[in-house]
Amino acid sequence: MTLVSIADIFDRKVHLGEEIKVQGWVKSRRDYKGFSFIDMYDGSCLNFLQIIVRRELVQNYQTEILSITTGFSLEVTGVLSPSIGKDQKFELLSTDVKIIGKIKNPESYPISIKKHSVEYLREVAHLRPRTNIIGSVSRIRSDLIYFIHSFLRKEGYFLVSTPIITTVDTEKSSKMFFVSSIDLDELLAKGSEEIDFDKDFFGIKTFLTVSGQLNLEAYACSLRKVYSFGPTFRAEPSTTMKHLAEFWMLEVEASFLNLSELIEFSEKMLKYLFRKIADYRKQDLLFLSKKTGTNILKRLDQFIQSDVIQVEYYDVIKILNKKRFNVKSLEKDISSEQERYLTERYFKNSIVIKNHPKSIKPFYMKINKDQKTVASMDLLLPKLGEIVGGSQREENFSIIHQNMIEKGINVKNYEWYLDLRRYGTVPHSGFGLGFERLVSYITGMKNVRDVIPFPRTMRNARF
Amino acid sequence: MTLVSIADIFDRKVHLGEEIKVQGWVKSRRDYKGFSFIDMYDGSCLNFLQIIVRRELVQNYQTEILSITTGFSLEVTGVLSPSIGKDQKFELLSTDVKIIGKIKNPESYPISIKKHSVEYLREVAHLRPRTNIIGSVSRIRSDLIYFIHSFLRKEGYFLVSTPIITTVDTEKSSKMFFVSSIDLDELLAKGSEEIDFDKDFFGIKTFLTVSGQLNLEAYACSLRKVYSFGPTFRAEPSTTMKHLAEFWMLEVEASFLNLSELIEFSEKMLKYLFRKIADYRKQDLLFLSKKTGTNILKRLDQFIQSDVIQVEYYDVIKILNKKRFNVKSLEKDISSEQERYLTERYFKNSIVIKNHPKSIKPFYMKINKDQKTVASMDLLLPKLGEIVGGSQREENFSIIHQNMIEKGINVKNYEWYLDLRRYGTVPHSGFGLGFERLVSYITGMKNVRDVIPFPRTMRNARF
Repeated sequence: MTLVSIADIFDRKVHLGEEIKVQGWVKSRRDYKGFSFIDMYDGSCLNFLQIIVRRELVQNYQTEILSITTGFSLEVTGVLSPSIGKDQKFELLSTDVKIIGKIKNPESYPISIKKHSVEYLREVAHLRPRTNIIGSVSRIRSDLIYFIHSFLRKEGYFLVSTPIITTVDTEKSSKMFFVSSIDLDELLAKGSEEIDFDKDFFGIKTFLTVSGQLNLEAYACSLRKVYSFGPTFRAEPSTTMKHLAEFWMLEVEASFLNLSELIEFSEKMLKYLFRKIADYRKQDLLFLSKKTGTNILKRLDQFIQSDVIQVEYYDVIKILNKKRFNVKSLEKDISSEQERYLTERYFKNSIVIKNHPKSIKPFYMKINKDQKTVASMDLLLPKLGEIVGGSQREENFSIIHQNMIEKGINVKNYEWYLDLRRYGTVPHSGFGLGFERLVSYITGMKNVRDVIPFPRTMRNARF
Repeated sequence: MTLVSIADIFDRKVHLGEEIKVQGWVKSRRDYKGFSFIDMYDGSCLNFLQIIVRRELVQNYQTEILSITTGFSLEVTGVLSPSIGKDQKFELLSTDVKIIGKIKNPESYPISIKKHSVEYLREVAHLRPRTNIIGSVSRIRSDLIYFIHSFLRKEGYFLVSTPIITTVDTEKSSKMFFVSSIDLDELLAKGSEEIDFDKDFFGIKTFLTVSGQLNLEAYACSLRKVYSFGPTFRAEPSTTMKHLAEFWMLEVEASFLNLSELIEFSEKMLKYLFRKIADYRKQDLLFLSKKTGTNILKRLDQFIQSDVIQVEYYDVIKILNKKRFNVKSLEKDISSEQERYLTERYFKNSIVIKNHPKSIKPFYMKINKDQKTVASMDLLLPKLGEIVGGSQREENFSIIHQNMIEKGINVKNYEWYLDLRRYGTVPHSGFGLGFERLVSYITGMKNVRDVIPFPRTMRNARF
């Protein structure tokens, strides 16, 4: 008798007539004359396994089986049989049903069988993976992480673990969390007037990273193709559906790569990911399509089938100003509303906006020959907005040095970074991809809080 | 003419006689009458490619080629040719050598061709991946991360992104970093006497995680087999070769798994990883063996070929006390020195010590029937010590609740965690693996600071 997962059964790895054991949790129970149906899931896939429990075949029918409610954990032995019902292909004719874990007061179970709103489910983030919807999202998220690793590996990229604790502030405008081991209570009790960071753990004020890019550049200048993928932080008091204080970011960096190759590569990667996930998690995606009212497979296929349209930033401004928008190009990046107009109404396609004015972009972007723009790129998806943002990096020592001074950056803190331009500099490019936005696009879940297990947002670090 | 990597060439993906382009950095240059040899690397493998530059074949021989020093970046076009020298199988007969990035003062280049100590290289962590030794370590680290993901995926595990910012303190004894966005200077200037964390970003005091285990358990109780893999933190002022303030930890958690299955699984995983890396990075491992004086392939093979010996904690104490050690079993875990005695001298093998006294282990470990010990495991490797530590978890509500009270834990903060025992509880087990220790074991590098790109230790958060 073999222990199998429910995914094994639906992947036809188990033959009809085989005696098997399954372990999992109860979705629901229905009773008929002399027998019950139990729907059971084990997380391995969206499918539940229908278990038939016949009064005459198990010893504990009256005493235990009839007490089973949603959320009980069971270990069931039985024979896999063809189903008579039309919705099911298989069912398990049980010979032994062991109750592993009960629920004392089923009425108080927070994840009962009835429909729950995603907002409510966030309040029980520790239990919400027990629902079909968060179960599906979790499997897709895990697969996407794996596909990202395998795609980049196939392309010759090495993963570099960039640090979380940092003294570097790449995105000068972002608010950062600081990290310390100083005993604040003691400090305040003593009535100190300032903090002596020399006495702190690292001997200097440290922060949670907003980007590992600068560290990645160091490795790109020797391993050539590198990436990092993991948590990143912003202390922005934002409450939108697209922002988290702790989110996952994929950052890719490669030497000897220019802007147009970077754009091509980011498009290639997204197409690979969309294709793989559509192949591999079709069932979950179809379920989520129904739940979210988004035709996800169509959305993914449209991206795979079409080419991303590349537009110059200044042409974008012209397009926007021809319509009702009134954009001053040198002030700031275009708004979400304008992004959506461009992808959904004007181009009706995914677009890359490139070569932004240097005044609105960070110091490390390569300054174009016109001296006014930088070799930047933002890839926008319809209904979502920016998914990838990147640039060719300025590899010339004098130019980047000058640019840092103009942007008011304390050059002294970046001497190590400048070394990369001092010693055997190379043209190189990279991008960042907000992973939760990607998962949100692929699952149809509108709020990024529903695509990360335990979201961190303003006033919420629960669980 | 195709752009290829040096790994492509040595993997025989390029035919002799083919015209190719390579991009990379100079290891060294030697001049002969009318021609020069340039050794070039591009990070894709340990091999360098020998490039022949003949005075009559390139235009810039006198003006540029003869100025090339270690660290220059180049783009070289040429024909792949069989080598006459006996150390080399191939060489590139160049027809065009483009200098991409120079080094103005070669004497000041921190990574010159001469041998550098690992201690010195830590001071130039942004440039050290340019050395053979750190290059090899970086490739091995990246591969191991990938092999961990692919092994666990193959075994049906889902990756769960557990949060970095947390209010949970799993390892009660560990010192934690705290995270805040409060303006401390302002606070001190105002002369406040205490901090109102309600005004902080999360409305509560938050820390950097020391373990994602409790969050993982929540997902194990619905997806069944889960893991997390990423940065973890300890604010311990330790300066040993085995400790970092920020390190990577793999945490695995599975429902319906008991202690002995957990031990078996951890051994299976390590054997898989050792086999894969020995196959895949043999050249780097042989090089590192020479550099570190450790026969790495033999070390890995010994583990693969033998079975880990399982010993009861109390038997370990007897063994230790029979020899010169005098251990009081209920005080604390055994020391590193004792660990090494056991693996290297007594058992001459890797061992698992299991069923520790409950008094020295955390509240979540399953209490054995004897009421004195817990279902714990520590896997120790010779020369390294503990690599994996885990346990079956206490799944019984009343027992874990009582245990928390006995250990002085504020139960109120763990209500969500207790829910996992309230609703359909299941036996489950998990372990943690310190990733840098694993990389250190596999690379022969003695100090974990040399197996993570930018180490964070006391008084060091540079780069």
